[in-house]
Amino acid sequence: MANSAEVLNELLGHSPTAPNPISYNFLVPNLKGLQNFLKATEGSPFSPMKASEESHPPPTPPPSPGTERGETGEQAPITSTQDPNEMPSDTSGVNNPVQPAKPTSSNSMEVSLFTAATEAFSKANTNCTIAESLERCKPIISLAKSKNIRVRGYVSVALGCPYEGPDVSPSKVAEITASLLEMGVDEVSVADTTGMGTAPKTQELLKALFGAGVSAHDLALHFHDTYGQALVNAVVGLEQGIRTFDSSVGGLGGCPYSKGATGNVATEDLLHCMHSLGAKTDINVEKMAEIGAWISNALGRPNDSRSGKAILARLSS
Amino acid sequence: MANSAEVLNELLGHSPTAPNPISYNFLVPNLKGLQNFLKATEGSPFSPMKASEESHPPPTPPPSPGTERGETGEQAPITSTQDPNEMPSDTSGVNNPVQPAKPTSSNSMEVSLFTAATEAFSKANTNCTIAESLERCKPIISLAKSKNIRVRGYVSVALGCPYEGPDVSPSKVAEITASLLEMGVDEVSVADTTGMGTAPKTQELLKALFGAGVSAHDLALHFHDTYGQALVNAVVGLEQGIRTFDSSVGGLGGCPYSKGATGNVATEDLLHCMHSLGAKTDINVEKMAEIGAWISNALGRPNDSRSGKAILARLSS
Repeated sequence: MANSAEVLNELLGHSPTAPNPISYNFLVPNLKGLQNFLKATEGSPFSPMKASEESHPPPTPPPSPGTERGETGEQAPITSTQDPNEMPSDTSGVNNPVQPAKPTSSNSMEVSLFTAATEAFSKANTNCTIAESLERCKPIISLAKSKNIRVRGYVSVALGCPYEGPDVSPSKVAEITASLLEMGVDEVSVADTTGMGTAPKTQELLKALFGAGVSAHDLALHFHDTYGQALVNAVVGLEQGIRTFDSSVGGLGGCPYSKGATGNVATEDLLHCMHSLGAKTDINVEKMAEIGAWISNALGRPNDSRSGKAILARLSS
Repeated sequence: MANSAEVLNELLGHSPTAPNPISYNFLVPNLKGLQNFLKATEGSPFSPMKASEESHPPPTPPPSPGTERGETGEQAPITSTQDPNEMPSDTSGVNNPVQPAKPTSSNSMEVSLFTAATEAFSKANTNCTIAESLERCKPIISLAKSKNIRVRGYVSVALGCPYEGPDVSPSKVAEITASLLEMGVDEVSVADTTGMGTAPKTQELLKALFGAGVSAHDLALHFHDTYGQALVNAVVGLEQGIRTFDSSVGGLGGCPYSKGATGNVATEDLLHCMHSLGAKTDINVEKMAEIGAWISNALGRPNDSRSGKAILARLSS
């Protein structure tokens, strides 16, 4: 499987065309990583986000596996809204798929960086304490913002840690999230890396985040479906005003630091659920199901989307 | 795989022992089926339900695959309650697992019968119209009740039909359910055989049922996880007062008349969700995960419980 640099070079060498603009997200593990990223993309057709684009952002593509380090298959946030009027006018970034087609020249790149909610996971995943991790983020965020590149922060193990157990402090997650936002990240994805999240825990976490002054519009929720609870948790998030959810087509992914962890909730299953609740995503779930089957097959992995498999069975009958 | 008669004979020949009493459920397709059942069980240690037992019923066992005709793997209703005080005092039948251990001599048998919510499915599954199906139920229910045997009715394809599509009339389901209860069945399991159910559709269906005078205490909900929405739908049911949910360990099952249909929601996943919401079931989810792994292996099928697999991975680490 290709690593981030290989994927980046491939993209730069063969700029893809698509009916809608695509935003590619790359994990930058440290400042050097961002410098390399900037060097590689300099003068490329992939422009950094422009202020004029931010209010009409492109939709996100299905995830490209292998472009991240810590967790994989994490780059397909879905922004949905039950009522477009409820959407914030300043919807940040690339995750609002409801917009007209644009030329592919507006394809863009964004970067993401990881922190974690527990010291043990931070040590294992990034080899530093949480405080050190946040210190390392500062210059990365500053440099990215100076280049007008959108930055997404992740807080891993926010609802359960493979080392410290299921009881992660919601106030600690809220504190780290607020710190990242203060440093200038455009959005924080609060991640249930282990899938230990439940409906009440999700509710408690969101309460802590809102209590710390974090806005629902600055948050994304990121659920792994390891214990099968991802959709239940996502519905709780939706009810609490969250409109951006991470997922991966075919349920691809996992986490090398979390034994038994499965991938993010499958995009197809999330779409089926969100659409049933009246959310508008502008995503064709049948096409997504086809992509899920194709990429699962290409990677030699089982297709882990129940909805995707059911849709394809229905279409083929 | 053994059929119902073989399973029944095996049980009668080798009466199982268990720390808690077990109730075995058998589908009776017609009056002749019930007569055969009565003949086979006459004088057996499996007593019919006695009035004195009904208020302290035994818990339900994990499902015995192959003991049903239409759908399979359908016999493990879980009754849960967020607050025992909310439970009806006349909690009917075998599905309340919160009670003290009893001698195995109180093991019992109950029977179930199927109807369907659409004419096309009724024709395919029972080879008669819905009206004819209800007429056939009458003498079966009468005979069973005269022998003091608990009867469970099922209404298949209540949230989507493989022949007539996803839009099944909630009022039709309510009408059939009310008819079954008027005929004397102890409980009706309203079944999303195809997994096409969604949260709003589940809500709408329950509204129609309650509107037709059906009590939450006379209902069970039965979700197949074909589109991955079973837990979301179950939470809707729980919020609306339903306390009995069907499931199958390891997500076993399917439906021969519904292409691509997967099994019931996995017992392990449902337990994980219900327990997280504060429900008391008196079921050990870790033991259930072990049973799921064992039976999946014995049947040569993949274990389809996310929670079961995650629990076992955690226990083995």
